[in-house]
Amino acid sequence: MYFCSMKNLSTRRTIRQYSNKEVSQELLNRLLSEASRTQTMGNLQLYSVVVTRSEEMKQRLAPAHFNQPMVTQAPVILTICADFNRTSTWAHCRKAEPGYDNFLSFINAATDALLYTQTLCNLMDEEGLGYCYLGTTVYMPQQIIDILELPRLTMPVATLTVGWPAEEPAQSDRLPLESFIHEETYTDYLAMDIDKYYEAKEHRPENLEFVRINNKETLAQIFTDIRYTRKDNEAMSEGLIDTLKRQGFLPWTVRGY
Amino acid sequence: MYFCSMKNLSTRRTIRQYSNKEVSQELLNRLLSEASRTQTMGNLQLYSVVVTRSEEMKQRLAPAHFNQPMVTQAPVILTICADFNRTSTWAHCRKAEPGYDNFLSFINAATDALLYTQTLCNLMDEEGLGYCYLGTTVYMPQQIIDILELPRLTMPVATLTVGWPAEEPAQSDRLPLESFIHEETYTDYLAMDIDKYYEAKEHRPENLEFVRINNKETLAQIFTDIRYTRKDNEAMSEGLIDTLKRQGFLPWTVRGY
Repeated sequence: MYFCSMKNLSTRRTIRQYSNKEVSQELLNRLLSEASRTQTMGNLQLYSVVVTRSEEMKQRLAPAHFNQPMVTQAPVILTICADFNRTSTWAHCRKAEPGYDNFLSFINAATDALLYTQTLCNLMDEEGLGYCYLGTTVYMPQQIIDILELPRLTMPVATLTVGWPAEEPAQSDRLPLESFIHEETYTDYLAMDIDKYYEAKEHRPENLEFVRINNKETLAQIFTDIRYTRKDNEAMSEGLIDTLKRQGFLPWTVRGY
Repeated sequence: MYFCSMKNLSTRRTIRQYSNKEVSQELLNRLLSEASRTQTMGNLQLYSVVVTRSEEMKQRLAPAHFNQPMVTQAPVILTICADFNRTSTWAHCRKAEPGYDNFLSFINAATDALLYTQTLCNLMDEEGLGYCYLGTTVYMPQQIIDILELPRLTMPVATLTVGWPAEEPAQSDRLPLESFIHEETYTDYLAMDIDKYYEAKEHRPENLEFVRINNKETLAQIFTDIRYTRKDNEAMSEGLIDTLKRQGFLPWTVRGY
């Protein structure tokens, strides 16, 4: 029998279709508030959340997320931002000189924002709310910054589309525990390890079908040639770095890298 | 009456002192496995966890975490790494050309690793296990990489010291919800907003005392002048960028930035 410390975690799935039932502001605010118990650097809470409910704003955000239909169809969109703006403004108001316009500070704030995001996700799971995490947030962040009017020293790092589930999709697979746990030091992967850890995934009927219809030889090629290509990754890396510079997180002192 | 969807979240605190009671491998593995239900990019699970139980390894890791006593005193240390090495090795074994030696791929893998980390934290809270999140992980990552023998395309992003609680510290404060939530667009902070949101924090007796004994004028100065200074942040930003380059996540194509 399976036992899990959080009752809905073991059955969780990403939800992309939502019912018409409203997500009340009261419930959402309760979860947004509870999630703030998450640990945070120096208790500074280096994040902000922009809540989108307006149809117009959803329409404007959609292209930044490759027009995935959840963005316009979900009742609520949450854009979670790394935020050193609020803390820096606090400092300026209190005779203090903030020094957070640098890369480490971006990583610290992004970390705070992502940990907060995941507690919120776990809370939504326990509450029965559905959500989809949009990794596209860091693909074209400048568009999101412009639409949400995010100031310097903030950066969007995660987006959640949120609503009550109107589907019960199949649960996706996961790699076995031993594939991602290392005892004392990292043991690099041999071909035989890879065979063992990826066998189940590669033999799932939907993955075999995915390889077939895309006319590929292996499942890995689906990822490298179609879903996450070098060309896209490199172009978006440059865009991401440009945006970090514009938001003040990569100052001249690290030029030359 | 207060109701929370996760029973221990509303009372959580960071635990730095641990009892002698063992953290069984069975329990730890169950939680490490359950946490993997967390959403992940393309279901690739772009993370690895190095589990430290040996005294020798704890002693070696301690300096990378400024010798915080939890590192040698906790029964278990978990170092969670962004990991594109395993996925890239899989690709190489399957006639696929991985293109993940770039900055976006680091952010994607770090995101996966941090979301996984936080689900694990929430599970530990529900289980009654104590932990402390060490933000120092990204301060001197090269040391950790050398000690744990982390290969190219991996990067430590979080460390947890884990054990059964031997203390019940006071719970830390949090900013009010309205201070970090924005409706539709980001509303920048005016001095009067800052006064309202930070007033309770600034007037907590322990914070007033902290300002007094450090001979500072304001609480914000404790952060800017002592805890997280510009000088330290800038030096560690350069170290972090150097390490990202050495780990293969900042290739020559982004030189010039």
